Amino acid sequence: MSTDTLACPAREEIHIETVLHALADSVRLEIVRQLARGDEIACGALDVPVSKSTLTHHLRILREAGITTTRQQGTIRLQSLRRADLDLLFPGLLDGVLAAKR
Amino acid sequence: MSTDTLACPAREEIHIETVLHALADSVRLEIVRQLARGDEIACGALDVPVSKSTLTHHLRILREAGITTTRQQGTIRLQSLRRADLDLLFPGLLDGVLAAKR
Repeated sequence: MSTDTLACPAREEIHIETVLHALADSVRLEIVRQLARGDEIACGALDVPVSKSTLTHHLRILREAGITTTRQQGTIRLQSLRRADLDLLFPGLLDGVLAAKR
Repeated sequence: MSTDTLACPAREEIHIETVLHALADSVRLEIVRQLARGDEIACGALDVPVSKSTLTHHLRILREAGITTTRQQGTIRLQSLRRADLDLLFPGLLDGVLAAKR
């Protein structure tokens, strides 16, 4: 099965303002919380109260900000968190965000 | 001389989305960086390339998000970072943001 990674910024192209803006949304924060639990998640397995097209929009914002990567595997898109990159660039940021009460 | 603190949210009213949105701006990030160096700073002593009215706008967003407090002392407004509150609510967040390259 072919696997392809959708375009996303290299680590050195990730900007703090863009990351903060992408995280400043309750749906996107919830996606990040679910991805932070572990490994890759298929889009359809993310539990968020939005339509499929809205979810696609939020996932694109997260990916373009450098927060997530998207891997296309056949007809499935797998999301994962770029935790290593974010922890290297902004140590503590992701943990602080995940520590927030909902 | 009379001293008064301008209205700002109590610690338990500070929300992560609002904080992230307030930080997701290059001017406000620069204000936070300057406040993070130490103690209170008078508005006029903040070194940011914006007009006085724009600065007032940015300071209000930071204050209303719970990131800063503003103390009026006579004709001077003194800004300070609510580091203790932010570190308690979102441990690591502020350090991660401050670690970001400009």
